[in-house]
Amino acid sequence: MAITITAFAASPDKGRGLARDMPVRWALEEVGQLYAVRLVSFSEMKQPEHRALQPFGQIPTFEDDGVVLFESGAIVLHIAQTHAGLLPVEPRERAQALSWLFAALTTVEPPIIEREQAGYAERDQQWFADRQPLLDQRIRQRLAVVAEWLGDRDWLGPHFSAADLMLVTVLRRLHGSGLLDDYPSLVALVARGEARPAFRRAFAAQLAVFTKGQIG
Amino acid sequence: MAITITAFAASPDKGRGLARDMPVRWALEEVGQLYAVRLVSFSEMKQPEHRALQPFGQIPTFEDDGVVLFESGAIVLHIAQTHAGLLPVEPRERAQALSWLFAALTTVEPPIIEREQAGYAERDQQWFADRQPLLDQRIRQRLAVVAEWLGDRDWLGPHFSAADLMLVTVLRRLHGSGLLDDYPSLVALVARGEARPAFRRAFAAQLAVFTKGQIG
Repeated sequence: MAITITAFAASPDKGRGLARDMPVRWALEEVGQLYAVRLVSFSEMKQPEHRALQPFGQIPTFEDDGVVLFESGAIVLHIAQTHAGLLPVEPRERAQALSWLFAALTTVEPPIIEREQAGYAERDQQWFADRQPLLDQRIRQRLAVVAEWLGDRDWLGPHFSAADLMLVTVLRRLHGSGLLDDYPSLVALVARGEARPAFRRAFAAQLAVFTKGQIG
Repeated sequence: MAITITAFAASPDKGRGLARDMPVRWALEEVGQLYAVRLVSFSEMKQPEHRALQPFGQIPTFEDDGVVLFESGAIVLHIAQTHAGLLPVEPRERAQALSWLFAALTTVEPPIIEREQAGYAERDQQWFADRQPLLDQRIRQRLAVVAEWLGDRDWLGPHFSAADLMLVTVLRRLHGSGLLDDYPSLVALVARGEARPAFRRAFAAQLAVFTKGQIG
């Protein structure tokens, strides 16, 4: 087994599949690629050995016969470009998938992360409550565009691609926020993603790490 | 001339090269690819015709014989993957460049954009001044990692790549903030990027749009 990824030994999200190994596992499952997982503790993540692979001291990393990647977006794209099934072959469709993969990570996700960040780093600040509507509005502006683009189609393009995988991964962060509720087509998109056998296998695999940690 | 990109008819940054057509122009200049520019007004950006190319109603877009991309990261990567010169050929080096291209956009840039966003959307809020140190600290955490990785090398990898192009583009947003000053190696990195003939041609081209608009 040539490919090894890293994941949290103790997932901060208790196995809800929000850690960034999840899209990498999902992509590997979609293309039918076996992989090994090396679990790293929070202290190991900050050690030079891990930071040689991931300079920011985070997970995931991806290693394949000397090829090392970090950043889940880069890893998912690398998997999609080196295996069949996650990117259209037709050049125009492929360009659209690449565009939406970046859009998911650099346009849709940042305001979602900012809202999370406020939730744990600014919750005790006087401004926390007053700032929430502003943060929510930034997210809604992006969701409205994605919903309009999606229309009544199943996926962003003619078939499921790495762009859908990444968009669903990003939108799953909104579970429990209520923010997706105004966009039924996006709720349905997330549900379609979560129903894919590859997603379910990836989700089960990351959950098993948490469950085993609880028992052990 | 097959490739057409879009850019602001009236650049909000007055030609400082911070609009997102700049990395696309720079990449095209690095690979020696001619391109045409279609200027769009703020109202045109929101029209269905433009939003068919850029769903979020922004610039830039990239069109090449029916292939359409949006998101500057996607466009720069597409250019780098379809022309020689902006990505290493050696697989391990290429994987590192891909990782850093994503890191520039999804790890280094978001706190910089958040600080800008606060500067124009939250400047009148009571919390604006109190929040600044927190925003600055988030940026410094990322800059420290990049500076440590860079060490005394000229570029992120053995040669200039699309990752350096994107990182320099991101770090240029900090001009005037004082935040780069604690990291002389990053100041020098930005200066090296800005000294490249391809950067200078791209910068001059986007500045000419603004200057012409002032005269006309």
